[in-house]
Amino acid sequence: MTALRATSGDDAGTPPPRERAVYFVSDGTGITAETLGSALLVNFPAITFRRHTVPFVDTDRAARDLTAEIDRSAADGLAPIVFTTVRAPAVREELDRSRGVLIDLLGGHLVELEQALGTTSSEQLVPSHGVGDLERYFARMRAVEYAIEHDDGQSRRALDLADVVIIAPSRCGKTPTTMYLALQHGLLVANYPLTEDDFPADGLPPAVAPYAARCFGLTTTPLRLSQVRHERRPHSRYASLGQCRLELRQAEDLYRRTRVPFLNSSTKSVEEMSAVILQTMKLRG
Amino acid sequence: MTALRATSGDDAGTPPPRERAVYFVSDGTGITAETLGSALLVNFPAITFRRHTVPFVDTDRAARDLTAEIDRSAADGLAPIVFTTVRAPAVREELDRSRGVLIDLLGGHLVELEQALGTTSSEQLVPSHGVGDLERYFARMRAVEYAIEHDDGQSRRALDLADVVIIAPSRCGKTPTTMYLALQHGLLVANYPLTEDDFPADGLPPAVAPYAARCFGLTTTPLRLSQVRHERRPHSRYASLGQCRLELRQAEDLYRRTRVPFLNSSTKSVEEMSAVILQTMKLRG
Repeated sequence: MTALRATSGDDAGTPPPRERAVYFVSDGTGITAETLGSALLVNFPAITFRRHTVPFVDTDRAARDLTAEIDRSAADGLAPIVFTTVRAPAVREELDRSRGVLIDLLGGHLVELEQALGTTSSEQLVPSHGVGDLERYFARMRAVEYAIEHDDGQSRRALDLADVVIIAPSRCGKTPTTMYLALQHGLLVANYPLTEDDFPADGLPPAVAPYAARCFGLTTTPLRLSQVRHERRPHSRYASLGQCRLELRQAEDLYRRTRVPFLNSSTKSVEEMSAVILQTMKLRG
Repeated sequence: MTALRATSGDDAGTPPPRERAVYFVSDGTGITAETLGSALLVNFPAITFRRHTVPFVDTDRAARDLTAEIDRSAADGLAPIVFTTVRAPAVREELDRSRGVLIDLLGGHLVELEQALGTTSSEQLVPSHGVGDLERYFARMRAVEYAIEHDDGQSRRALDLADVVIIAPSRCGKTPTTMYLALQHGLLVANYPLTEDDFPADGLPPAVAPYAARCFGLTTTPLRLSQVRHERRPHSRYASLGQCRLELRQAEDLYRRTRVPFLNSSTKSVEEMSAVILQTMKLRG
């Protein structure tokens, strides 16, 4: 996770890249602090950030150890940036004693929210796993297992239960997108590879045709597909630009002919593709 | 995603549950707004929130449509809460015209960060998928495919490449945790089921013994395991409390004997388990 650029001392003409230590500090997993902190840092592309995620800082002692570490990393003269979602006041106060600049991602908004809701927040620290969590856990476990079983057209056992069936030529991003939807949203997602055999036909492949209304297609650019395929089978016909161009054109024609919504994955992250699929298939509340 | 509690009109003794519409609004996927917003809402357990995630609000027009929707949901008299991570000023101004209470999760912190860094943020909106993204995409794709191949001890082909090998009795949460680490962190994670046959032996099962230093164990409570196994095979010996108690005790003995770090998954989410594993195995920067 460390993005450290080398500084070459003899290259006197160029100023050395500016570096800054960044800490994402949480009393939980650190995911929220990391996600929001990173969304903020992306606005400063000229600075290189040395990132440290420090989860489970929920005692004075953990906070003291961390404060010492932050102070050590401040020894180069620039105050580290400390993004925090820690809730316990004692822990926050301890962090505040460090030489880092604290950016509290939660506290200020909690006050705003209290005002909006006209009530104070509960005093107790609410753990993130409460009632209903076992159900969510079951749903995720089931969804991940379903996705593994129904990956790449391997099984049709419970295809009729799928919330979404992702179809695309090989290496367009079906599997990671499937797994993300299963894991993050507990959806039953199958995926099915389109091959040259599928294209002469008028409609969708017989295996997925009964579920046309739940199908979602992926496409990409020929260049990107060729790059990804070269990873798997370098210099094969399978990876050639011509072959990629052909398969993608045929797949897009098929999507249009069968009115399957589709998406170009070449400039999108797995998170973005999943968000578009949820929205298009009306799978979010 | 909607958490709507039923209001029973005839139960005059109890005040009706307080409900409030909440919008998570983003010019991207909405994940950041949803994650931080939810972390804030958890502090108000007495209020029922009707949640709406609205991704890709990046034009004036999308903002106007949304403002109209927010105003409609404000018709019950209580102003909706609008968490936003939208960056374009024009879009934020449009949202600001709604009857909702805007909580800007990004803007204020950006100013704090500019002060801390002693520079202004870049004017252009930096897309979340820039250089280096293709590499991350490859890493994730590879990791998810590795995880599928090496799930539940199914393959040992590339076990030597594993960053982590998760071991546990059946239904302790190996598969979702494996998939989360693969998808979110691009790590190569295999998992291997411990069965009764593995316990009489002194050491780890032969398949994973060479990778002892990369093994991580899961355990849970007998009750939780029994609940989860009942989901799969109701009223079986496999799901009985006695059997679960026995397997978990044997597994924990094995972890201690072989000095494999382990974790009780019964009160932890997949995110929390993954964070602990990353930290214990020193896999984070």
